Amino acid sequence: MRQGGFDMGALVLPRPYLLFLGDATERGFAKTALGLADWAPDLCIGEYGLPGCTVSAGLPHLTPAEAKEKGARALVIGVANVGGVIPDHWMDALVEALDAGFDLVSGMHAKLESFPRLAQAATQAGRQLIDVRTPPPAIPIATGRKRSGKRLLTVGTDCALGKKYTALAIANGFRARGIDADFRASGQTGIMIAGAGVPMDSVVSDFLAGAAEILSPDAPQDHWDVIEGQGSLFHPAYATVSLGLLHGSQPDIFIVCHEVGRTEILGVNGYSLPSIPQVIEQTVAMGRLTSPKIRCAGISLNTASLDAAAAAAEIDRLAAELGYPVADPIRRGPAFDRLLDACLA
Amino acid sequence: MRQGGFDMGALVLPRPYLLFLGDATERGFAKTALGLADWAPDLCIGEYGLPGCTVSAGLPHLTPAEAKEKGARALVIGVANVGGVIPDHWMDALVEALDAGFDLVSGMHAKLESFPRLAQAATQAGRQLIDVRTPPPAIPIATGRKRSGKRLLTVGTDCALGKKYTALAIANGFRARGIDADFRASGQTGIMIAGAGVPMDSVVSDFLAGAAEILSPDAPQDHWDVIEGQGSLFHPAYATVSLGLLHGSQPDIFIVCHEVGRTEILGVNGYSLPSIPQVIEQTVAMGRLTSPKIRCAGISLNTASLDAAAAAAEIDRLAAELGYPVADPIRRGPAFDRLLDACLA
Repeated sequence: MRQGGFDMGALVLPRPYLLFLGDATERGFAKTALGLADWAPDLCIGEYGLPGCTVSAGLPHLTPAEAKEKGARALVIGVANVGGVIPDHWMDALVEALDAGFDLVSGMHAKLESFPRLAQAATQAGRQLIDVRTPPPAIPIATGRKRSGKRLLTVGTDCALGKKYTALAIANGFRARGIDADFRASGQTGIMIAGAGVPMDSVVSDFLAGAAEILSPDAPQDHWDVIEGQGSLFHPAYATVSLGLLHGSQPDIFIVCHEVGRTEILGVNGYSLPSIPQVIEQTVAMGRLTSPKIRCAGISLNTASLDAAAAAAEIDRLAAELGYPVADPIRRGPAFDRLLDACLA
Repeated sequence: MRQGGFDMGALVLPRPYLLFLGDATERGFAKTALGLADWAPDLCIGEYGLPGCTVSAGLPHLTPAEAKEKGARALVIGVANVGGVIPDHWMDALVEALDAGFDLVSGMHAKLESFPRLAQAATQAGRQLIDVRTPPPAIPIATGRKRSGKRLLTVGTDCALGKKYTALAIANGFRARGIDADFRASGQTGIMIAGAGVPMDSVVSDFLAGAAEILSPDAPQDHWDVIEGQGSLFHPAYATVSLGLLHGSQPDIFIVCHEVGRTEILGVNGYSLPSIPQVIEQTVAMGRLTSPKIRCAGISLNTASLDAAAAAAEIDRLAAELGYPVADPIRRGPAFDRLLDACLA
């Protein structure tokens, strides 16, 4: 049994999806399914919940057989269980999906292969069990060779503040302007949304920059790869992942992502958030190794904690202070258009 | 069967060693054995060559049974074969060693477990097959917590130019002055020399800084950990390993290692070596995240390509140019004493 499908080195998922919601009763546990329905509606044929499930991603309710009929190829486990494992009462449904001809896709820490009933059913049905946290095999060592095409990388003052959503919104914004652009996913949720990518944080260190190189291969000169960043150069645990992605991505431009009100680095004690100018300076200093003309194109500000008026005021204040365009890519509006203009300048 | 012994997270090897030389006829293929005999003579009870072997590490020639009698606990495969695998005609000797009660230690890419005859013999004899390229299990995510004790890290303008030997020489130099110091190994040869360590380049990216944290645990206030560096912040493939080691090591001081005449980064095309001042500036800029008072203590210059007079002249010239002490740790002499003084200042 293969651990996923791979193309040009990066993981490529069978699509479109049927989203499995289990017996979820809280939207917080179904974040993967809800994110997929929001950001990759074209990839989602329907949703499939067990009796007791009260959460919906707003898609047609389909059985595996019905979804297969409509062209779905993979069942995505779009819901997290407390403990991060697959409960016994989901097994019948997952085996039914394998028997119906679906591959299974999971972003959980527990590997699908580690559940004997799933492993056996997949073998019998000739289907794949794909763990998107498993990196592709045979990642090359980075060469540092300059690749063709244009690249944008989202970086951050910290982790978990909007690098993925910013990259998705910018890729969509580019495409809305008729520009040929791909979102390049570097984490498990992004990979499910894009249907392809490399889970950077699971790659062995020696191959990290090489993994970033295969994530955004040579492309036509006018093509943009909009690459999902990871971590922060100022995070004492995760800066290495950020640096490998920066070096291997060779970005022409980067966007600094920040969340209003965040003052401390997540997950560690006693580390203050860097300032946005510090992030710009350090990203340029390290990034110019593989991309000599790298520049900051603007700031993506997560203003989810503010109302609309306060968000607009903070966006204007920060833009005046820093001298860069600032926008919240979820709120969009004219500020976001100015950010896209700056990317393409 | 365990994949090695682990203590406080880091790999710890059974010692002392009997060095296996196979049927080597060129010293270049026996670099691991020769390095061990040079740098860890106390750990090496003897050497064991097959008929046809013409290389010697200068140790007593002992059979496994004789070496066992003298207290040896592990047979170290101290010779590389073309292709990096274990040839069939070594097997009898390796199985004999397992049967005599030795654990086997290897730094080759091919895992010892992958040879069925060795795996079976080890199981029957109740011995360990230890691949020093295999990182310890359950490495924690880095916390960034400041640890007690003092730390020195060797960094470089490139990879493969003397970071390991510099750290070994400085640790020895500290101990010769009566200072409590440990060499901390971050690569496979260093781990064999030290008898313990973490193979940083084999660690999954998310855990890299955490691996560096367990490599140099809390220590008494006057104790020095002298940590073997890896790669270079200016290497487009390996900078990530260098950064994880820098952040997790929290060095109070660092030594920049450089080789006379090296102008291009190894293993990639079109990358010029950074200047030593660039390396100092970038190491301070990144290193102060976890070690706010980090400073450069001096330069280790690999002058193997020069004769003694030319080496001394180049060391003096560079010291005057940079304003830092400069020494070749292999040549030692007064310049090396001044470098040690600067470390302890």
